[in-house]
Amino acid sequence: MALDPGWTVAELRELAALTGDERGAQRLAWTPTWARAREWLRVRLAELPVEVEVDPAGNLWATLPGASPRAVVVGSHLDSVPDGGWLDGTLGVLAALEVLRRVAGEGQPPLTLRLVDWADEDGARFGRSLIGSEAAAGLLDGEELAALADRDGVGVREALAEHGVELARMGEAHAQLADVVAYLELHIEQGVELERRDLPVGVVSGVLGVVRHAVRFEGETAHAGATALELRRDALLSAARLALEVREIARRQGGRGTTGDVAAAPGIVTAVAGEATLLVDQRHETPELLADVERRAREAADRIAAEERTTVAWETLLRTAPVPFDPLLVSIADDVVTELAGEALPISSGALHDAAAVARAGVPAAMLFARSIGGRSHTREEDTRPEDLEAAVRALDALVERVLTALR
Amino acid sequence: MALDPGWTVAELRELAALTGDERGAQRLAWTPTWARAREWLRVRLAELPVEVEVDPAGNLWATLPGASPRAVVVGSHLDSVPDGGWLDGTLGVLAALEVLRRVAGEGQPPLTLRLVDWADEDGARFGRSLIGSEAAAGLLDGEELAALADRDGVGVREALAEHGVELARMGEAHAQLADVVAYLELHIEQGVELERRDLPVGVVSGVLGVVRHAVRFEGETAHAGATALELRRDALLSAARLALEVREIARRQGGRGTTGDVAAAPGIVTAVAGEATLLVDQRHETPELLADVERRAREAADRIAAEERTTVAWETLLRTAPVPFDPLLVSIADDVVTELAGEALPISSGALHDAAAVARAGVPAAMLFARSIGGRSHTREEDTRPEDLEAAVRALDALVERVLTALR
Repeated sequence: MALDPGWTVAELRELAALTGDERGAQRLAWTPTWARAREWLRVRLAELPVEVEVDPAGNLWATLPGASPRAVVVGSHLDSVPDGGWLDGTLGVLAALEVLRRVAGEGQPPLTLRLVDWADEDGARFGRSLIGSEAAAGLLDGEELAALADRDGVGVREALAEHGVELARMGEAHAQLADVVAYLELHIEQGVELERRDLPVGVVSGVLGVVRHAVRFEGETAHAGATALELRRDALLSAARLALEVREIARRQGGRGTTGDVAAAPGIVTAVAGEATLLVDQRHETPELLADVERRAREAADRIAAEERTTVAWETLLRTAPVPFDPLLVSIADDVVTELAGEALPISSGALHDAAAVARAGVPAAMLFARSIGGRSHTREEDTRPEDLEAAVRALDALVERVLTALR
Repeated sequence: MALDPGWTVAELRELAALTGDERGAQRLAWTPTWARAREWLRVRLAELPVEVEVDPAGNLWATLPGASPRAVVVGSHLDSVPDGGWLDGTLGVLAALEVLRRVAGEGQPPLTLRLVDWADEDGARFGRSLIGSEAAAGLLDGEELAALADRDGVGVREALAEHGVELARMGEAHAQLADVVAYLELHIEQGVELERRDLPVGVVSGVLGVVRHAVRFEGETAHAGATALELRRDALLSAARLALEVREIARRQGGRGTTGDVAAAPGIVTAVAGEATLLVDQRHETPELLADVERRAREAADRIAAEERTTVAWETLLRTAPVPFDPLLVSIADDVVTELAGEALPISSGALHDAAAVARAGVPAAMLFARSIGGRSHTREEDTRPEDLEAAVRALDALVERVLTALR
C-alpha cells in the first residue's frame, strides 16, 4: 500500500467537519468532541494490524510490532483550543496514521512503529499544557493538577476521570517511553519562516527556552494637572520604556521578546501611575543566549528605574530550558527535507510541543514543520495549502523510513 | 481687630482634629463629618455681623453688607477627599474667615464682603467635582447628577436632600453671583513651583485647559514564541511609544502630558497584544497651545501606527477650555505678593478649582497659592509650614483690602 498524502488531506477535512463548527475546531481535551475525534481515529486504526491502548495519562497509542521491540514513535495531538484551527496537532496525528498504513502494508518493520495521540497538548480547558506528554516524560505528577478547574467550575480530577484517567496514576504513563529510540513529530509551523523562504517543509532544530517575569516598577502617584513633569516618578512610563527595550534586545540578540500586558495603579486618567507591572516573556535557543537576554533586560530596567527615579523588582513566573533536538535525527531530517524541498531550513520553535517534553525525558526526538499561511494558529483562519500538507506527509514518511533503517 | 494669621493656623488644627482621624481628613461632602465642619464654621460666623445662608446648591454664604451691594467674594471649600489633607480647601475658607473678622472689625466696608464655602469641590463621593460652584456658575443642572450614586449605592438625590438640596433647584444658586464684582480664593498649591523657588505664596494666572482621550491601537494578537519580531503588529508597544511621546511633547511645548493607564487585550504573557487603549491627559494654558499639543500627539500616534502596522482611533473623554483669571485682579495680586514675598511667581494651575467655575461664569476671579511641602495633596501627608500659612493669610487679606478699594 503506497503512501497517499492526498488521503491525509481528505481525512483532515473529514475530521474538521466532524469536530468543528463555523467558529473553528472544538476538540477541547477531555470533552465529548475530543472523544469523538479519538473514536474517529480508532475506527481507522482498527483497519490496521496494530494494538491500540490508552495509557494512564490518557495518551492513545497504536503499536505495529517490529522485528525489534525497540520503537520509533510518531505522533502529535488531536486536542485543540476552542475555536481553533484544523491542522494544529491533527496534521501530525493523521500524517502518522498514513505513515503507519504505508509501513504496515509492507510487512513487519525492522523496529516497532508506534503512533501516539498525546492528551491535552493545548491545555485550554485547565490552563496547563502538555499534560499527556509531560506525564509520560515523568515531568508531571498528576496530583499537582488537582486544584485546577475549568471555567464552569468542573475540577480536573472529575473531568479526567470521565475519560478513564486517575490523577494519582498518570505518572505510570512513563512506561510507554521505555523502549522508544526515536520520537518524530510533524506540526504546522505557527510562524512564517517557511513562508518567507517559500519552502513547504522545514526541520525544527529545537524549542526555545523561556523566561517569564512580572516586572514591577514603583514610582509615586501624582496629580496629572498639578505635578510638573520633571518632578514625576512615573511607573507606567518606566514600564513603557522597558517594553520597548525588551523588543530592542530581541532585535539585536535574536530570540523573542514579548510584553503582553501591563497593569498600572491607580490606573486613572487624572493621575501619574505610582505602580506598573509589565509581563515580560523572553525566549532563546541556548541557556547562554537566554541568560544573556535576561541580563540585558534587567540592566535596561535598572537604568530606566534610575533615570525615572522609580524602583524595579522582578518576579519569575516561568523558567524552562531550551530543548535541542537529537543531532542524529535532525541530521536525517535535514537530508530528507533537502531531497524533497531543495533546502532544509533549520527553525527554532518558539512554541512548545509534545516533542520537547519527550526530548526532556532523554528520548531522541526531532520535528518537522509544515508551512503555515501567515503563521496563523489557535484560530479558525489557520491554514496550509493542500500541496504543502502533502509534501509534509511525504517528508514525515521519508523521515520515518530512514530512521527505521538507521536505528535498526 | 487686627488680622491674626496665627489664629487661622490654630483654627485649621482645631478643625482637622474635629473632622479627621489617623488616616487624614474625612470631610467628604454630604456626610455628617462635613456637616460638622460647617457647624463649626457657623459658630464662628455667628460672632460676626454677617448674614449666613445656604443656597439651593448647598453653598454656604456669609455676607457682611458694605456701602455698596456690589460684592467681593472670598472663599474655598471645607469638603475633602476621604483620608485627605488638613489644608486643601479649608485654608481658603478659614483665611477668608479671618479676613472677614478683620474687615468687620473696621466698620462698614466700601463694598459688600462675602465668604463662601462651596459644596462638594472634591467630588469624591459621587465622582463629580465642583458641584456647588458650577451650579452657582450656571454650568451644572442638578438633574444631570440624578443617575450618580456613591459606593454604598446611595443616590445623589437622596444624599443631597439630607442636606436640604433639591437637584431640580440647584441652578437657583446662580442668583448668588448677581452682584459679585470679584472672586478671590486662597488654596494650597498641590504642586512644587513655589517650593522650588523658595516662595511662600504665588499668584495663579489661570487654570490649564484639559483634553482627555482614550487612544485605542489595534494590531494583531500573535503567539509570543512562534511569531518573528518583524511580523508583529503590537498594539501595546504602539501605546508604549505614544505614552513616551506624550511626555516628550509636554517637555518641549510646555503644559502637562500624562498617561495614567493602558489596557491591553488579550493581556496575557504568552501573546502579543492585539489591542491596547491608552488614557491620555493633556493640559495647557491657552486654547491655541492646547490644540497644538493635541495635534502633535495625534500626529505622533499616526506615525507610530504606520511604523508598527497598527491602527489608531481617538475617543474624546473630556475637553475643558483654559481659564485665564481676571487681568486686573491678577495684577493687584502680583503687587500684593511682590510686596509681601519679594517676588510674585505666576503659576498656571493644572488642578481645577472653584475659582475656575466662577471665572467661566464671567465673574472676575483670581487665586493665590500657598506653598505645599513636596506638592502632596489628597493625602494625610499634605502639609505647609505654619509661617507659610500665615504669610498666605496676610497675602489674602492684603489682596481683599486692595480689591475693596480698587473696585469701590
